[in-house]
Amino acid sequence: MMKSITHPTLLLDETICRSNIKRMADKAEKHNLVFKPHMKTHQSAEIGQWLAEVGVTAITVSSLKMARYFADHGWDDITIAFPCNTRAIPQIDELASKINLTLLVNDTTTAQKLGKKLSHAVQVYIELDTGSDRTGLQVSQVAKIQQLISVLNNTKHLRWQGFYSHPGHSYDARSEEEIHKVHQSVVEQCKQLRSALSEAEPFEICIGDTPCCSVAATYDNIDAMSPGNFVFYDLMQAQIGSCQTSDIAVAMACPVVDKYPQRKQLVIHGGAVHFSKESMSRGPSTHYGLVAERDNDHWNIPSEPSYLARLSQEHGIIQCSTQDLEKYQIGDILPILPVHSCLTANLMKSYQLISGGKITQIPT
Amino acid sequence: MMKSITHPTLLLDETICRSNIKRMADKAEKHNLVFKPHMKTHQSAEIGQWLAEVGVTAITVSSLKMARYFADHGWDDITIAFPCNTRAIPQIDELASKINLTLLVNDTTTAQKLGKKLSHAVQVYIELDTGSDRTGLQVSQVAKIQQLISVLNNTKHLRWQGFYSHPGHSYDARSEEEIHKVHQSVVEQCKQLRSALSEAEPFEICIGDTPCCSVAATYDNIDAMSPGNFVFYDLMQAQIGSCQTSDIAVAMACPVVDKYPQRKQLVIHGGAVHFSKESMSRGPSTHYGLVAERDNDHWNIPSEPSYLARLSQEHGIIQCSTQDLEKYQIGDILPILPVHSCLTANLMKSYQLISGGKITQIPT
Repeated sequence: MMKSITHPTLLLDETICRSNIKRMADKAEKHNLVFKPHMKTHQSAEIGQWLAEVGVTAITVSSLKMARYFADHGWDDITIAFPCNTRAIPQIDELASKINLTLLVNDTTTAQKLGKKLSHAVQVYIELDTGSDRTGLQVSQVAKIQQLISVLNNTKHLRWQGFYSHPGHSYDARSEEEIHKVHQSVVEQCKQLRSALSEAEPFEICIGDTPCCSVAATYDNIDAMSPGNFVFYDLMQAQIGSCQTSDIAVAMACPVVDKYPQRKQLVIHGGAVHFSKESMSRGPSTHYGLVAERDNDHWNIPSEPSYLARLSQEHGIIQCSTQDLEKYQIGDILPILPVHSCLTANLMKSYQLISGGKITQIPT
Repeated sequence: MMKSITHPTLLLDETICRSNIKRMADKAEKHNLVFKPHMKTHQSAEIGQWLAEVGVTAITVSSLKMARYFADHGWDDITIAFPCNTRAIPQIDELASKINLTLLVNDTTTAQKLGKKLSHAVQVYIELDTGSDRTGLQVSQVAKIQQLISVLNNTKHLRWQGFYSHPGHSYDARSEEEIHKVHQSVVEQCKQLRSALSEAEPFEICIGDTPCCSVAATYDNIDAMSPGNFVFYDLMQAQIGSCQTSDIAVAMACPVVDKYPQRKQLVIHGGAVHFSKESMSRGPSTHYGLVAERDNDHWNIPSEPSYLARLSQEHGIIQCSTQDLEKYQIGDILPILPVHSCLTANLMKSYQLISGGKITQIPT
């Protein structure tokens, strides 16, 4: 499979990916959660099909463009987990005429604009800021939440469904224990919310981050989960404690184009336009990816790995272990695990299956 | 023009871009340099046409894919300024059958592989590492350079043409004076090289970075220049000292989708998949872009600007000045200057001209 590679290529291990999907679907079922996976990581109709094969019928996306793409591929229950963009209401309305569409609405003005301009019904989640300080209302803002629910319930075409939260602060965790702490706080906030809104009509709470969805063991007061990155995982998720390196389903395959033994460096075709500039720390050094070995049908990171130390637009500089410096020559292919698979996949636009064949993503 | 924007859009000011192009073409002419602009920043056949209109006949690219795209759009003298990828020799050979192709070859093994497998002539530059520690041979490695020249001159289909250097360490400069220092060192190395190779046949030296090409005033021993970023410039180039903010030709236009007055934050649709995660420092904070004002047909940065403080895949968090917090509401469009226009343009894939109309890039 490596033999035919001439340019930076994103390899996908279908077996590992399907196993990640199956594990998360089983977990959702075990905890009686609706499984609404986020498609932003893979952005691929084919991988969507693998999700459909484990029983998924509702999905989550982060843009109208993705929603349209997956609607075109047969999905008819889609949540756009991003604050509703009021400039795109005509396009939202058109999509709502075809599928069961759910939006995030965090303020009354947006609700009123939707009410005025929509001609088809949409479902609405209010976004809950459970600690990531990105978007949404906080549980403590009960009066504001109640007012928004009231506006939503009284606005034509809007059907208030409940709350959505992406506890992105789980990305600051560095162990399973720290993830549990974040999740416990989220569960506690959901409990407070249910108590504060005990007189509202029944509603749903959907939680979205991969670390909590991967690791947590109790889901009291939560009804649905929408993790995204879990299909591939990556080095960042392994560092957070969400997965093992052996769960990582994607790797970049990059040609070695130059070698500098004195600096212990290899140069690859593979730069910022392939990996993205997402970086992480390992000891004193920052890196953009780690050189992997293929071992028992999984990727493995040696104890003293070579790392992608520097990126230009198309160049990557690998700082090598003594072993890799001997092992790799100009013209070889280097397998590298990405720091953040969502951004790498978004740049690469297609996948080379390790078992053979190529699968595509949403067109540009 | 802003009125019709519904999603993150890369705006291009054609007048500023053409003015940047004209200024660099004039400078090359004044210093008797061949102008071989790098197309990696814009990746667009239309902008290539603007370069052709000022007399450009030879261009530089950083991948075989870009070389093919511009060859398909009529360019017949193309340098791939990237260490030759020996896994792609059949594709290189095919392109060499159609155009005047120049490659970078930094080692004898690659030269020999090319000699064995090519059936069409290519020109070759040896890459010179003038201080960026990325790729190429150093001037001090005279024996190695002489040996490589000898191999190139005696290898079928290869025509040694001279040296190429991208003094990327100019990106560490923070003033015109610091750029001049880098450039002086490059000029000095070129002089040493000519002296060391005084018995070789005449050869050309081509220098590639935007900071030195923008600012330097003397080009002794240099024959050609191949800057890329200068067509658009960006905040990083303004910080380096290569340009004024008013020379920046591109800006992102992003819808405001949420607002958090207490945190002094706006949330935009515009994330890592639009801006890239290239960041820079401004005082104590790191940012991914600055909110601009349109003033006298140029972009202007206020003295206390709002900045793009945080990026998720699709979300951008703007830390606002008091003025912008009052000025911008949900549903408005926010203009933001990118940190690194090459990576932003690569993600955005097309340009909305401020004067109206859309131009495209190389297809995925």
